[in-house]
Formats: sequence, structure tokens, C-alpha cells
Amino acid sequence: MDERVVAEAVAAAPVVARWTGAQRRDTLYACADALAAAGDRILRVVADETGLGQARLTAELGRTTGQLRQLGDYVAAGRHLSVRRSAAGGPGGVDIDQIVVPVGPVAVFSASNFPLAFGVMGGDTGSALAAGCPVIVKAHPAQPLTSQLLYDLVAPAFASEPAAFALIHGGASTSVALVKADGIKAVAFTGSQAGGRALLDAVASRSEPIPVFAEMGSINPVFVLPGAARDADRVAALAGSVTGSSGQLCTKPGLVVVPDSPVGQAFASALAALVAGGDTHRMLTDAMAAEHGSWVRAAQASGLRVDRGEGDPAPMAVTVSRADLHRLLDGELLSEHFGPSVVIVLAAEEDFAAVAAGLEGQLTATVHADASPQDHALAQQLLPVLIGKAGRIVWNGVPTGVAVVDAMLHGGPWPATSASWSTSVGSAAIERFQRPVALQGVPADVYPR
Amino acid sequence: MDERVVAEAVAAAPVVARWTGAQRRDTLYACADALAAAGDRILRVVADETGLGQARLTAELGRTTGQLRQLGDYVAAGRHLSVRRSAAGGPGGVDIDQIVVPVGPVAVFSASNFPLAFGVMGGDTGSALAAGCPVIVKAHPAQPLTSQLLYDLVAPAFASEPAAFALIHGGASTSVALVKADGIKAVAFTGSQAGGRALLDAVASRSEPIPVFAEMGSINPVFVLPGAARDADRVAALAGSVTGSSGQLCTKPGLVVVPDSPVGQAFASALAALVAGGDTHRMLTDAMAAEHGSWVRAAQASGLRVDRGEGDPAPMAVTVSRADLHRLLDGELLSEHFGPSVVIVLAAEEDFAAVAAGLEGQLTATVHADASPQDHALAQQLLPVLIGKAGRIVWNGVPTGVAVVDAMLHGGPWPATSASWSTSVGSAAIERFQRPVALQGVPADVYPR
Repeated sequence: MDERVVAEAVAAAPVVARWTGAQRRDTLYACADALAAAGDRILRVVADETGLGQARLTAELGRTTGQLRQLGDYVAAGRHLSVRRSAAGGPGGVDIDQIVVPVGPVAVFSASNFPLAFGVMGGDTGSALAAGCPVIVKAHPAQPLTSQLLYDLVAPAFASEPAAFALIHGGASTSVALVKADGIKAVAFTGSQAGGRALLDAVASRSEPIPVFAEMGSINPVFVLPGAARDADRVAALAGSVTGSSGQLCTKPGLVVVPDSPVGQAFASALAALVAGGDTHRMLTDAMAAEHGSWVRAAQASGLRVDRGEGDPAPMAVTVSRADLHRLLDGELLSEHFGPSVVIVLAAEEDFAAVAAGLEGQLTATVHADASPQDHALAQQLLPVLIGKAGRIVWNGVPTGVAVVDAMLHGGPWPATSASWSTSVGSAAIERFQRPVALQGVPADVYPR
Repeated sequence: MDERVVAEAVAAAPVVARWTGAQRRDTLYACADALAAAGDRILRVVADETGLGQARLTAELGRTTGQLRQLGDYVAAGRHLSVRRSAAGGPGGVDIDQIVVPVGPVAVFSASNFPLAFGVMGGDTGSALAAGCPVIVKAHPAQPLTSQLLYDLVAPAFASEPAAFALIHGGASTSVALVKADGIKAVAFTGSQAGGRALLDAVASRSEPIPVFAEMGSINPVFVLPGAARDADRVAALAGSVTGSSGQLCTKPGLVVVPDSPVGQAFASALAALVAGGDTHRMLTDAMAAEHGSWVRAAQASGLRVDRGEGDPAPMAVTVSRADLHRLLDGELLSEHFGPSVVIVLAAEEDFAAVAAGLEGQLTATVHADASPQDHALAQQLLPVLIGKAGRIVWNGVPTGVAVVDAMLHGGPWPATSASWSTSVGSAAIERFQRPVALQGVPADVYPR
């Protein structure tokens, strides 16, 4: 890695920190406008490099430009500022006011599965810039053309301070060198658990600790309560959530728990059939395709009930009893992986909470319930367990499709993320890159807020 | 370490998490009441074990009980809850609401220099309990009697769930075992940089990363601007801030920068004389006394101007030019240490910002200025640099004496703390031990908030 890139970001940090909220907004809007204006070209390059479909990419481009503008509006309105003020709370009755300041240069790793929304100018970059931090993005090695195109399109928005935003290319050694560089003050990553762990370990060897916001995905359990299991209309949306984007979303449901009853078994069969009949397209990288292939072979060798569809990657559902689930919990079939695959578990409804309690930390947990007192009573028992495991609880919906709104929490306990107190989607994502400072008795003419 | 202690805290975690705000308040009030009722006994034991004076300890006990009640009031009023809500912000127009949940068992290390306010039932323990987390405190090895007494006094407040609060004794290996234990979800520490670093390194070897909130102190620079340097009345408070509690406060000013002018030199001389004439009492531990002794010898061997007083520990001021400061910056005289010592720097006022820029991260930075346009103009240049370095800016005051109020920020960039986004004093200290969860479309009858 060329260390001058970091030195330049360090030099730019005080300049970027002084950008007003309006200047940050204007910069983010300029980036969004540049991306929107080049939409057709972007979609062509990205589709070619990723295999993702046009409808999906068109929606993702809209989300990407929308979230940049939303982050800009948020800071222009001063909504990222601290509201903590203790009037006359200091010694001698002076006021104490909290302000927030940017942490400094941020290293962002663009994600392969959201080449736009979590790419070079995605949510992590946008929230760091909104916080007033220079950003150095490392391009995903599988998407050099997409990454460079996005950078080239938005670079003119940084004409007044080109070092506010830089792009580097490279492999694992470049990633490690970047997060170990002295001037870097925070890391944002979306990717695999192995990748996140490698960054955490590299950062642990620094003399100055810095936070690593690694979002690594999960199996996103879905619990279908007995009343809801009678509603066959729910199956299609769940199956689509498994196979959409060839199952390459960090919120893809990888585990669906249904009642072990005739109604539940029918729901499970319908879901398995719809998943196996789902459309897929080529996966993002050869490594992901190989990982899904390995999962498919493990499922077929397991002796469990398998519904396998056509296509490459093959969409696939494995249906198991609760007894089987136990031996799956530490194995490959229930480890987070990308691909159009799902494990369906038939369990007695009184065991749902125990199944939930056995899971690791998750980005999301979903409950399907009808309006009956029975389903609501069961949900009341289940929810505290799920809330203890996940960053977001979805009620009668699907976990894929993360709304970009203030109250969103896209995060969760390890191993879903490395920083369960943070979110990488929504305006609170900005907080990852700022720190509070208390001003004790400082006159407003000396430091305006 | 007896691992059953952690297992019991893990088992207690869901119970403590369900305590309502009012129950948490009642528990914290019961602890405060128990400490207040045993005040005389506590003061005797602590004074004997620490050497700290009665006036200081009396004030500290009041602060300790006050902050427990304040934390209780805060959560009973629901002020720790998230205010983020996106009405109709989810897919299909459902509401998204954020709630906060406790992270689980917290390991707290009691601090030697605040045996009450950051001791067994101090601010870290209080804020973790307020968040709804069980706490395991490791007693400071130098204060076994104080620690056990405090624990025994408050234990009855946890009669309904004794494992909500546990005390263990031990040395460094116990500390490492505690923070590496699987069930521990966060660490709060106040102490030396070496101690904080050791905990960070131990945590880095865990399979599940957890946050370490280590507050490690700093040299807390004070800048006396030219107008303020004419005001001799400011000297006494500064000198008292250096020598109070024998200089064993993490916010003790260890560096005072004054103008290199006749007025500034007079201020420096007066400050040095008052520091050297300050009263001291025995230090908290032999190791701290030895460290101060080493500092004193280094100062005397340095060839710099030294004002040394009587007493053990000896109060002492070293006065240097800005040219000397350069060679001190990486050496012993300007490393954070406990003891009634200060380095006074004579510098041209136009160099103040450059001196500030050369410093590491700090808990506090203080500016003394009069009302003149000259001092305010200089402060306007200096403050952005200091805000980039410190967690709290003090205007015309002393950094010691941390107000326990909502807007307080007792924290700061590395090496002052390991988590610059957090505070260990004030109600926001609770946030260290909770994480947000988004509820997407969840009906209020299933999960009330």
C-alpha cells in the first residue's frame, strides 16, 4: 500500500472536519447526482462484473443515491449533533455542552454483494463523510472496474480537497496494511466472518486501538407460528427472500422454523418446493460459488430431506426435525454462507424459544404470527429470546430489504457484527465516526455551536 | 478465578434485564442508602487503606451515593431508552421503533484512586446495573478491606438475585481470566495505561470480541493566555489541582503552558512556588510512590529548573522553555503518572497551538483567558486543536473535579481512553452497556415499549 494515501487523508482531516453540515450535504448530493447521471453506464459495468440482475441493480442505485442525500440532509439539519446540555451543571455554575467531532480518516472496505449501496460510495463512505471524516476505500478485488468507475464519477465532487476521498486496490495484505496505518481512526467493513476477523486481529496489533465496525452477516432465523402457518400466502415472499439475488444478501433467511404439525409440514413442503423452483443467476465470485457447492454436497450427503432445483447455483432447501437441528448447529449447513439455500426445521411450538436460545448473534430474527391470541401469546415468550440475539426483529415480513430510515438498526451481537452497539444503515450510522466532547464554560464567541 | 461466578452472572442476566427502570432505581437507591448509613465506618476503613484525607473522602462518598441515585432516577424516568422511531418507515408502511437492551454480564475493575466513586459500587458498577447488566467487580489488590466492606454493605440490596452483583479478589492473572471468560460482554476499567493495554490484549485473544472501556488518564494540559496570566488569583486553584489528593487524580494537570513574557514568567514562578509549598499525604500504593520518586529523580537530573517542596511525596514543579519541551515529549517527565508534580512550559503565545498539536489524546484540556479580544482571538485558534485532542474542554477552571451531570464527557482519544466515543461519568455512561434493537412492525401487545 502506498502510505502517502494515508498521509494525505491525515492532512485533509482538519479541513474536512471544518466542512459545515451544508458543505457535507452539498458534497454528498454532488456524488449522488454524478451517480444518477451515469446510471446506464454504471448498471452495465456492474451487471457485467457481478452477475446481478438489472431490476435489482436499478433499485440498488436508487437506494445508493437516496441514502447519500439522506445522510447529507441529516447533517445539514444538524441532527447528528449532541443534544446533551447541562445548563449551570459545571463547577461554579457554568454550562456544560456536548458537541460532536469527527474521529479522523476512516478505512472502508467495499462489499461485493452490494456493489453500489455498500460499494465505493455506499453507506459506510457516505456516513463517514457525513461525520466529517476523510475516507479511504479499498476496492473489492472482484470488482475493480465497478470500483474505479464509481470513484472516477464522484471524484470531481472533492475538487476542493481531493484527499477527502481516495480509492486503493489490492488484496489481503493491502487490507491489513491499511487498517494498521497510524493515521486511520476507524474501520468499516461488510463481508465474511473470516474477513472481519482478520481485520480485527490486524487492528489488535496496533499501538493505538481503533474501532472496527465489521458487518459479517448471519443466518437470520424465521419463526412461523401455528396460526401463521395456515396462511399459504406467506410462503412466496419467504421463498423469494431465500433465492433473491441468488441468496447473496447478509439478511437472507437461512433457517425457517415451522410447527411440527400437519399444517406446519404442509407449509414446509410448500416453502421447500418454491425455493427449489426459484430463479437464480451466477454468483458474485468463484469462491462464493464454490462455497455454495460445498453446502449443496454436504446437504446431499447428510441423509436429510433435500429439495433441489435447477440452475447454477442450484436453489435448495433442507428439511430437518428438531432433533437433527442439534447436530447441524455447529456444522456447515447452519453456518452463514451465501447461496439460494435454506434449512427448514420442524419443531414443536413449545420448543421454539429453546431453538432460538441455541442460536448465535444475528442481524435479524423474524416472527410470522396471525392475529390470534395463541400466536400472540407464543410470540410474547419468543420475542425476549430473539431480542437477546438479534439487532432487528421483523414481524410478518422478510428480513431482506433493509429500510434506510432513522430507526433502522442493521447490526447485532457477534458474530453478526463486531460492534453490536452500532448500525451500518440509517442515519445513526454516522455516529460510528464521531466522538463527543464536553465544553465546560466555553463562551459561544470562542466556539460557536 | 472461580468460573462459577461468571456462570452465575450469565444465568442472572435475563432476570436483571427484565428489571424495570423503577426496580433498577430501587436497587441503586438501596445501595446508596446502605453506603450512606455506614459512612463513618467506610471513611475509617478507606482512609486507613488509602491515605486519602477525610474531607476528600467525605466528598467522594457523597458523590458516590449521589451518582447511584442519579443513575437510578435516569432509568426510572426512561431517559436511557432510544428515541429513534420511524413511523411507517418499514416495508409495507409498518413502524420501526428502536429499543435498547442490556449487553449482559459486565466486568468492572475498581480503581485505587477513587476507592468509592470508581470503586466496588462506583460509577462503572452503577451504570452497568442501571443498564440492566449483572456486574462482576474485581477488587483493587491494594484495597481488599475497602472492597470487601463495600460489597458486604450493598449485597443485601441484591437479595432477590444475588448473582446480579459479585466481587472477586486477585491479581493480574485473575483480571485476564475474567475478561477472557465467555459470558462477559463488556469491560470497564479505570487505571494505568499498562493495565488498560493488558486488558485490551487479553480481550483481543477472545473468539468473541467485546468492548473494553478503559480510562487511563492523561497529562491534562492547561494553557494560560496572556491576559489571564496577569491575574495572580488563578494560581492558587491551579496549584491545588496539581497537589490535591497528592496528585493522584486522572485529571491532574501535568502540563501548564504560560506565555514566555515577564508576566508569564511571574505566573510560572508563582505557580511553581505554590505547588512546591503544597500539602501532600502518603500515596495510594508503594508502586505509585516509587513512580513519583523516579519522576523526581529524573527531574533533578535533567538540569532543568526545579522547585521542590517538603513532604513525602515531595511536591514538585519543573519549569522549561518550549525548546526543552520538545525533548520531554516522549520522556518520563511528560508521561502520565500520579504524584504532586507539574511541568510548566514557557512558550511564545503564537506557538501555543503548535504545542497543543504535539500532544497525545487527553481526558481534558484547559484554557485560561480573560475577557479581552486578544485572549478570545487566541482561544479561537487554540480550541479546534484542543478539541481534536481531548474529551473535555475546561474554560477558566481546573480539570480536577468532574461534574456528574448529563452533558459530562469523561473520556477522550487514545491513550486517555480505549473508547473515545464513550464516557465513564454522567448518565451517558449507561450507554456503554446497552445496545439498540429495531422492532419492525412488532405490535405493542406482543412487546410493550
